[in-house]
Amino acid sequence: MDERLCHRLEQLLGATALPREAALYQACARDESNLGSYPPDAVVVPADARELALLLEFAGAEGVPVTPRGAGTGKSGGALAVRGGIVVSTARMNRLLEIDEADLVAVVEPGLITGALCEAVQERGLFYPPDPASLLSCSLGGNVAENAGGPRAFKYGVTRHYTLALEVALIGGQRLSLGRRSTKSVTGYDLVGLMVGSEGTLGVISKITLRLIPLPMQQQLFVAMFDDAVAAGTAVTRLVTAGVRPSAMELLDAQIVEHLRQSGRWSARGQVGAILMVELDGPEEGAVERLERAAGLTESAGASEVVVATDAGRCRALWEMRRQVSVMLRDACPHKLSEDIAVPCGALPEMLRRLDRIAVDHQLEVAAYGHAGDGNLHVNILSPEPLEPASRDAVLLAIFRAAISLGGTLSGEHGIGLAKRDFLPLEQEAGQIAVQRQLKRVFDPQELLNPGKIFPDA
Amino acid sequence: MDERLCHRLEQLLGATALPREAALYQACARDESNLGSYPPDAVVVPADARELALLLEFAGAEGVPVTPRGAGTGKSGGALAVRGGIVVSTARMNRLLEIDEADLVAVVEPGLITGALCEAVQERGLFYPPDPASLLSCSLGGNVAENAGGPRAFKYGVTRHYTLALEVALIGGQRLSLGRRSTKSVTGYDLVGLMVGSEGTLGVISKITLRLIPLPMQQQLFVAMFDDAVAAGTAVTRLVTAGVRPSAMELLDAQIVEHLRQSGRWSARGQVGAILMVELDGPEEGAVERLERAAGLTESAGASEVVVATDAGRCRALWEMRRQVSVMLRDACPHKLSEDIAVPCGALPEMLRRLDRIAVDHQLEVAAYGHAGDGNLHVNILSPEPLEPASRDAVLLAIFRAAISLGGTLSGEHGIGLAKRDFLPLEQEAGQIAVQRQLKRVFDPQELLNPGKIFPDA
Repeated sequence: MDERLCHRLEQLLGATALPREAALYQACARDESNLGSYPPDAVVVPADARELALLLEFAGAEGVPVTPRGAGTGKSGGALAVRGGIVVSTARMNRLLEIDEADLVAVVEPGLITGALCEAVQERGLFYPPDPASLLSCSLGGNVAENAGGPRAFKYGVTRHYTLALEVALIGGQRLSLGRRSTKSVTGYDLVGLMVGSEGTLGVISKITLRLIPLPMQQQLFVAMFDDAVAAGTAVTRLVTAGVRPSAMELLDAQIVEHLRQSGRWSARGQVGAILMVELDGPEEGAVERLERAAGLTESAGASEVVVATDAGRCRALWEMRRQVSVMLRDACPHKLSEDIAVPCGALPEMLRRLDRIAVDHQLEVAAYGHAGDGNLHVNILSPEPLEPASRDAVLLAIFRAAISLGGTLSGEHGIGLAKRDFLPLEQEAGQIAVQRQLKRVFDPQELLNPGKIFPDA
Repeated sequence: MDERLCHRLEQLLGATALPREAALYQACARDESNLGSYPPDAVVVPADARELALLLEFAGAEGVPVTPRGAGTGKSGGALAVRGGIVVSTARMNRLLEIDEADLVAVVEPGLITGALCEAVQERGLFYPPDPASLLSCSLGGNVAENAGGPRAFKYGVTRHYTLALEVALIGGQRLSLGRRSTKSVTGYDLVGLMVGSEGTLGVISKITLRLIPLPMQQQLFVAMFDDAVAAGTAVTRLVTAGVRPSAMELLDAQIVEHLRQSGRWSARGQVGAILMVELDGPEEGAVERLERAAGLTESAGASEVVVATDAGRCRALWEMRRQVSVMLRDACPHKLSEDIAVPCGALPEMLRRLDRIAVDHQLEVAAYGHAGDGNLHVNILSPEPLEPASRDAVLLAIFRAAISLGGTLSGEHGIGLAKRDFLPLEQEAGQIAVQRQLKRVFDPQELLNPGKIFPDA
């Protein structure tokens, strides 16, 4: 994209939509994936859906690649402009348009920070459950594009389960209004579901209607200690199959606990092989008994110790500790690789066993934590130096092969993006990938929208 | 399709796959939609996925339309061979292949009757929640194709939320294995979600992996009487927004109660303007208190009387009564029209008000019942004689317009099929319909698979 094109774009959208600050361009060249820097030719920050559609019309006509960007917190490189062209940021489209307490919906623009919505609805006694660890900095448009999860997805489901309607703009400028405000609908193909998790490769979101639920009345938390992660994983399987349905069930393995201890975030004495954080919510009636039963089951499933967090401050501190794990690991180990495989519930202990073996085989520190109730583990390769590409691919291949052979998947919530596109054929047959490429072309025949993502190069 | 083609098909698949009984052909010409008789040229009943793929390869090569058929219980005409050709029945692909108690999944063939799965998993302490009224006769393949719901969808979600993986065969014979066994995955586009609810227009399902949950421990039921349906709808909105989350919340309006009374299914004395059936489930702890709170809230939200069903036999009888409503109305009124609009939760009272007005305006008996917690109403036009097409379209148009103007949808769970395809443009803009037609062509470029469904004729 040359200066002439940038100038025409500025004429089309006005100077406010094309800020020229170097810091913005630098920020938009990267995301949280650690996959390098891809400086865009232009950064466009539209004020509204109309400007967004104008931009996409321009890009379609000129054949310029467009990479949508939410808050840039993605872990799979989805926001990186790998083919150059325009980065379109939703930062200015960040209004909370509506909260309807009778219909139990919120209508938002994509740039709204997830935590801001959570707080606003909570003030009205409502609840938006998806809670990625980055919720104070990630945006709802990004959450929809990646189908974000979080600890509470175990009980409440992921972003897809809360996305009722979407307004999107396609490359070329066409605008579509998909879905409706009712919880249920089977009218036509599920285009909302197709858009959710499509990683910005099919359309750019300009408005989102989200389902809310009434705020659960009670929250309780206990922490269970285990001799090792496999024992914790076995307990998770036992709890889930026994019908204990906590609002979250998070596992931290021995490596993670050690890093927490070293960084002063975990101060309890004694050897800890793994921690399980179990949060329960629900009606007040029977809450104490439910907590006792869950804690008792956890103990009989092999916990060496169970500690109930009795006050709200302690609960908040424990959650804060959990949310900082990713940042803590990055600080301790800037070259870490962070994966997020998921396996079926019953396969969790075996997956943890295989991770132990992979760490030994590859002589690397492998630390796992995450949403154990969902079988969704954030697997971190903590190497002090950047790994050689061959070593990196070998260890990732071993992890992905283990997850897939157990009936699981490459990614539970981060998406494929740039990070895992070359591994996609491990999980999906050529025919399925070919069908997806054809679907992509229905929305984007010139392959201009977020090119180079999800699918390996042909 | 001439006799020569039928003969070649028989050579390809063997005589067992092409039964020649006249009764089968008659049965396959109709479904539960009351939309007339469409005799197919051939009925094929493959034994397995291999035979299914061979059939679809044959049909693609010869340009013969194929209409997939589950148990024929659909209400929107999805199984009708409106362009002739082949009806492919999944009746012989009806095995329950696996129940895994650790992974909490079941793997089934599409012809398995839903109720048979429900019973088999319940024997192992597990639960498959989607429960269409036809569950004793409908098939899981049909449930997936239509994204079936049922009363318990209010708490537990619809078929889509339980469909983890699908094996499908496309026209032309290509086989795809979509999804995985883990609860979570964001790998690639959500093709499983795209197939669910696509009404047999994209592919034919040959295998389904379903998510199960542990069986809830407790079930309780109460029945609340109201002066009229609007009052009951208002109570539903109040209960939902107050965070009462019953496993089902079913509304029956005055017309339905009167038909129940006349058919000897409802014997309580006194005038009843509307009934709300509220079922609660969950852990034993606090169950009595939860029931009392829900019943108390229902009373304070306007119920004239609340009766708790104390024993299991009474609960079963009430559910049996509820499930028979559709059949009862058909017996009383063979020419009834049965719709299934859905509106946002807060709009339920207004939708019921508008139905009253539509009944007066069109001088027709309009009876509504259904999944009130979801805002999903089965609206029945009970005319003693078949309506003239113009009158029928006028009353349907009024109902659909009301639902859509309130943020709702043409269909909450029955699908569009043949019944509502001409109304699709009421809800969806031309651009959205055009995109869906293009998606259809990715899977079925010759438009041979279940042609004439969902989309209006061009």
